Amino acid sequence: MNETVFVIPLWADLLAVGLGGVQGAMFASGFQGQRRLDLLGVAIMGLLLGMGGGLIRDLMIGVPPATLQSNWYLVTASGAALVGMLLAEVLHRVNTVIVVLDAVVIGMFGAFGTSKALVLGLPAVPAIFIGVCAAVGGSILRDVIMGLPVAIMHVGSLYAVAAGVGCATVAVAASFGAPMVPAAIAGIVVTAVIRVLAVIFDLSLPEQRRLHRRKVAAETGTITIVKPPAAE
Amino acid sequence: MNETVFVIPLWADLLAVGLGGVQGAMFASGFQGQRRLDLLGVAIMGLLLGMGGGLIRDLMIGVPPATLQSNWYLVTASGAALVGMLLAEVLHRVNTVIVVLDAVVIGMFGAFGTSKALVLGLPAVPAIFIGVCAAVGGSILRDVIMGLPVAIMHVGSLYAVAAGVGCATVAVAASFGAPMVPAAIAGIVVTAVIRVLAVIFDLSLPEQRRLHRRKVAAETGTITIVKPPAAE
Amino acid sequence: MNETVFVIPLWADLLAVGLGGVQGAMFASGFQGQRRLDLLGVAIMGLLLGMGGGLIRDLMIGVPPATLQSNWYLVTASGAALVGMLLAEVLHRVNTVIVVLDAVVIGMFGAFGTSKALVLGLPAVPAIFIGVCAAVGGSILRDVIMGLPVAIMHVGSLYAVAAGVGCATVAVAASFGAPMVPAAIAGIVVTAVIRVLAVIFDLSLPEQRRLHRRKVAAETGTITIVKPPAAE
Repeated sequence: MNETVFVIPLWADLLAVGLGGVQGAMFASGFQGQRRLDLLGVAIMGLLLGMGGGLIRDLMIGVPPATLQSNWYLVTASGAALVGMLLAEVLHRVNTVIVVLDAVVIGMFGAFGTSKALVLGLPAVPAIFIGVCAAVGGSILRDVIMGLPVAIMHVGSLYAVAAGVGCATVAVAASFGAPMVPAAIAGIVVTAVIRVLAVIFDLSLPEQRRLHRRKVAAETGTITIVKPPAAE
Repeated sequence: MNETVFVIPLWADLLAVGLGGVQGAMFASGFQGQRRLDLLGVAIMGLLLGMGGGLIRDLMIGVPPATLQSNWYLVTASGAALVGMLLAEVLHRVNTVIVVLDAVVIGMFGAFGTSKALVLGLPAVPAIFIGVCAAVGGSILRDVIMGLPVAIMHVGSLYAVAAGVGCATVAVAASFGAPMVPAAIAGIVVTAVIRVLAVIFDLSLPEQRRLHRRKVAAETGTITIVKPPAAE
Repeated sequence: MNETVFVIPLWADLLAVGLGGVQGAMFASGFQGQRRLDLLGVAIMGLLLGMGGGLIRDLMIGVPPATLQSNWYLVTASGAALVGMLLAEVLHRVNTVIVVLDAVVIGMFGAFGTSKALVLGLPAVPAIFIGVCAAVGGSILRDVIMGLPVAIMHVGSLYAVAAGVGCATVAVAASFGAPMVPAAIAGIVVTAVIRVLAVIFDLSLPEQRRLHRRKVAAETGTITIVKPPAAE
């Protein structure tokens, strides 16, 4: 674990976990009415989005999950979720904050995932893959546990693509001998910029399409099953 | 693995796995009509509830799953599931049995999870978290694989809270230097008592609310999608 | 990892991964209309079916995932998925190809899973269990992430039973001192033959029943919730 701590400073790791926790709370605040989540539900959402990506990363690398080696990760993720809950109404009004927060968080989880995999000796392609899984894994866990359609499969590719390009940046920089810290920062910036530009320039409209589809579903009150595939 | 065997005697571990297997079978027997599960389906439910929690615990701790290091776990879980299937009709009539069984099982999985994490050197907060995940993990796996709403998110917090208080009891006792065996027993008792009291005194009515919601859904025949969250 | 490479030659492992990737693409091509998957979605399906089983196997054994130790697995699975996508229309017309492909793939994943578990010292029962999980694990991941009913729970037991008998063949042969390579080949053949015979002789009609149920669901446009189980 020494190399890992060397690569990802604890404060940076906790920052990503905390921002993920805030996101989880904001997601939870979107549930209204009968399915309104209680305090524990909000905390669980915070844990899933704050720690889920790192957990998936470490399982895939094959090391004990770093987020469970210290008390701080759980305290940070659940604390951030409860703070995020209190701020949710304010934050929802500032759409720019949400978009940038989201872009930075997937950038951080992706870059940390790829960096850690590379430092532990994995080849470039799996290292990039692990970074992407770390970036989107928390939201997959969230959707599966909440019984929602998995966003990454339906929202549009640009989410995962932004993470992938950022993680590839880290891997390429590392292969040219760049130190890990600037390589990771470059990866975060690349992912965040692609993601923010995609939202600004409406590339493939991932958010809108997703909201639209869900609104339609909410109106009709049903989930339409897809045409059955012809083969297993 | 030596310390683990030292902490959790094999018979106690297998008892928890077997009781979980019985629960799985009783759950499976609730499926009637078109979705009635066959023998293999019953066995799978038994494996998920009997071994799922331990599997999640060991993945989170980062050790090879104890339930797969010996032939006994799989034999016990699937055997208990088939016995449970035969007894399901009788057991369902004795509601007290179900409630107490359920309370003891989550207590055991929680206490064993936290004990094992502590013995392997994890700090208190992650150790408690791992215990809670071990206690409720089997039912999460079950719900996800059966395509049901994840009970722990909708039934009410008291389920996870009972597990959490029991696991915290283990961690606090251990931090005061108590030996692991009495600490674990204390944790099991605390969780089971909280859970049983909650059902007796109707605290937050977790079972009824859950059954009610599912009945409503069964009548209308649809799953209503929640209002879409405004943010990722 | 040396023993593993010794047991499962890289080309055989990549063949299984590649065939799984093709299956993923053919599955993805079944989604039409609004839920039609884009290129990335097809690649994700290929990764899930090509690498999901091996990932689950290695997590259960407690070793770092072999599919992430080399660049080849990810390249093979996603490449095969894209090739499979181009060939999907042709392949769908040749039903025999689909059935045999499917039978051979579950045979390979099952036999490799059991072989690897045995070589790494696990007892026979968990080794067989891990083989079955490796054989069906990719399709479970696929169904959970796509929000579909988990096929293995609803299609009929014969799928898992075929994998189980093949994996047991490997374990029994190994316990009689047979070398791993012929034992694994025997396991693959047993699984594939059972599966193909089951389809030919219409045993329990797993495909038809599954397709029928999904067609009904597609017509009514709703998911019907099962009768609520009476116990947790």
